[in-house]
Amino acid sequence: MSEEKLVWKGYAVHDTSRWDQLKLINFEPKRMEDYDIDIKIEYCGICGSDLHTITGGWGEDVMLPLIPGHEITGHVVRVGPAVTEFKVGQRVGVGAQICSCFECVPCKTDNENYCPDKVDTYNAKYPNGDIAWGGYGTAIRAHERFVFPIPDGMSLDHAAPFLCAGLTVFSPMIRNGLGPGKRLGVVGVGGLGHFAIQFGKALGAEVVVFSRSNSKEKDARELGASHFVATADENFADPWKLKLDLIICTADVSKGIPLNKLLTTLVVNGRFIMAALPDDHLPAINSFELANNGALLGGCHIGSKKEILEMFKVAVEKNVKSVIEVRPMKDVGQALQSVANNRVRYRMVLK
Amino acid sequence: MSEEKLVWKGYAVHDTSRWDQLKLINFEPKRMEDYDIDIKIEYCGICGSDLHTITGGWGEDVMLPLIPGHEITGHVVRVGPAVTEFKVGQRVGVGAQICSCFECVPCKTDNENYCPDKVDTYNAKYPNGDIAWGGYGTAIRAHERFVFPIPDGMSLDHAAPFLCAGLTVFSPMIRNGLGPGKRLGVVGVGGLGHFAIQFGKALGAEVVVFSRSNSKEKDARELGASHFVATADENFADPWKLKLDLIICTADVSKGIPLNKLLTTLVVNGRFIMAALPDDHLPAINSFELANNGALLGGCHIGSKKEILEMFKVAVEKNVKSVIEVRPMKDVGQALQSVANNRVRYRMVLK
Repeated sequence: MSEEKLVWKGYAVHDTSRWDQLKLINFEPKRMEDYDIDIKIEYCGICGSDLHTITGGWGEDVMLPLIPGHEITGHVVRVGPAVTEFKVGQRVGVGAQICSCFECVPCKTDNENYCPDKVDTYNAKYPNGDIAWGGYGTAIRAHERFVFPIPDGMSLDHAAPFLCAGLTVFSPMIRNGLGPGKRLGVVGVGGLGHFAIQFGKALGAEVVVFSRSNSKEKDARELGASHFVATADENFADPWKLKLDLIICTADVSKGIPLNKLLTTLVVNGRFIMAALPDDHLPAINSFELANNGALLGGCHIGSKKEILEMFKVAVEKNVKSVIEVRPMKDVGQALQSVANNRVRYRMVLK
Repeated sequence: MSEEKLVWKGYAVHDTSRWDQLKLINFEPKRMEDYDIDIKIEYCGICGSDLHTITGGWGEDVMLPLIPGHEITGHVVRVGPAVTEFKVGQRVGVGAQICSCFECVPCKTDNENYCPDKVDTYNAKYPNGDIAWGGYGTAIRAHERFVFPIPDGMSLDHAAPFLCAGLTVFSPMIRNGLGPGKRLGVVGVGGLGHFAIQFGKALGAEVVVFSRSNSKEKDARELGASHFVATADENFADPWKLKLDLIICTADVSKGIPLNKLLTTLVVNGRFIMAALPDDHLPAINSFELANNGALLGGCHIGSKKEILEMFKVAVEKNVKSVIEVRPMKDVGQALQSVANNRVRYRMVLK
């Protein structure tokens, strides 16, 4: 396949108070460098992060105009002279991180997702001042370290949500030793949660789902949950006391779901990992709530390239699939509204 | 040595608002059972927990009259018919836990300190209703699982503070993989902190101490700290960003020392363990503060018998010593005042 002349256009937010009124703009991609790859975008998932950012929920300091989107799949159309991993025509993806410093300890130990100088895929600038533009557009340019091959047999629309939602739950499972004989709690059944249930099962764990009401019980069980717990019941946690090795939380525990009760369900020295990043602070907890079972409350930020490759391998082997709704990119505003109103089961993907 | 007729007397708090006015009372020990041991108390350390409890800081639901104290050393004077581990005359200690259920998963996996039905050494009742009386007295009765031999060559006064303060920092070090090549942060230089510095060094780690001011720098270095950081400096955390594998926090981070800045000093997936149990809630944190480096914020509760035996072994081998001030038990009110006013360097022990 020969190189293709790319059009650099994208749907941009201009005002956080009118975050659903995106306009198509032309943009200048980052300057081309030797390890860069140009990708023609076919699909881009809508992540909760997109809404947190464009509404100003994570802070009003937003780089406007802003083209969001970081669950990107497409085809390579051009490779820089130093690129070794990819060829023109290859099916690839880009996630929520577009660059890092390459030099720090995290970068050198497969923890580039924790590089202090990481560059996010949008709402960010490169060290040279170039703007990072997201995936609600026609094309993206990225260093090859932050580009990932999409496995054969996985369609590009279904692959897109793995690049942020899938990875965000897969990485903490790997890092916290989930596997056969372990019991996983998944809090929330949504874009992240529907992956967490499947990956938990795929890794050999028994999966217990916590959700506000029973409305998603059938779906959760179909995705692989062995148990479903509605947290609206005041005593929901009691039967699970000291039973879960790991909890992956994909819901906003600052609202509705009581963090302190969830913590009681952990085994001694069990871990509760916040995969969601709510706008608000976590509820203040008392040291006793951690001391009772020696629980650990942790955070996480996407995952490394190594983990992305492993995730796709597990997904193919164990048949983990995204559950998506596809809409044309021109309807991005309505699509964002649907995500904001929790109407999507379980991930919106723009074409 | 023959069995000795014990006197069961102790200094009791009768009113949380007059917590320093203890009165000597007679008390009835728990009913003797087959695995029980009677110990004539020689020394009892004053733990921060004693003050949290008797002032009502941990809750006004205090079982009055209350004999506090859970850093107890003395001699065995009587053993029940099923006791195998101890003999009359032996030098022993009792810590902050006096019983557990023996049947649950934690109890059966050397995590009896996390047994949901554990019985604290004071301000607690046994399942049969008997009251657990603490160590500010003449004697204590305990199941042999919660009695520990004091190593030869360690005096009973110096041994006492190991049984809570020492163990409380030693256990999370072991559980979180501290060892050679690791860097440990210790927050606070007091009863717990002075042990944490020494045990960190004894286990082969490089120790960085965080304290509000420079007033304890000399002591901290003498105890084994390689670095000393005064947290009053607004930018204190910057030079330590992503540098510490583990932090053991022995200070109240709800006041003064900013938890969110301390979290930035952890390596990727590093751990911050609250060894102190402040009266107040921890400051509310934002998920981003954990996500930036994938940090884990954990709690802990004393340690297991297995860990106590290991702790004493390390202490003897590496010459870890408590720094104590000894006062007669009749002056317990003044001694408690000194602890409350942070005047003790670093542990008060009653004789």
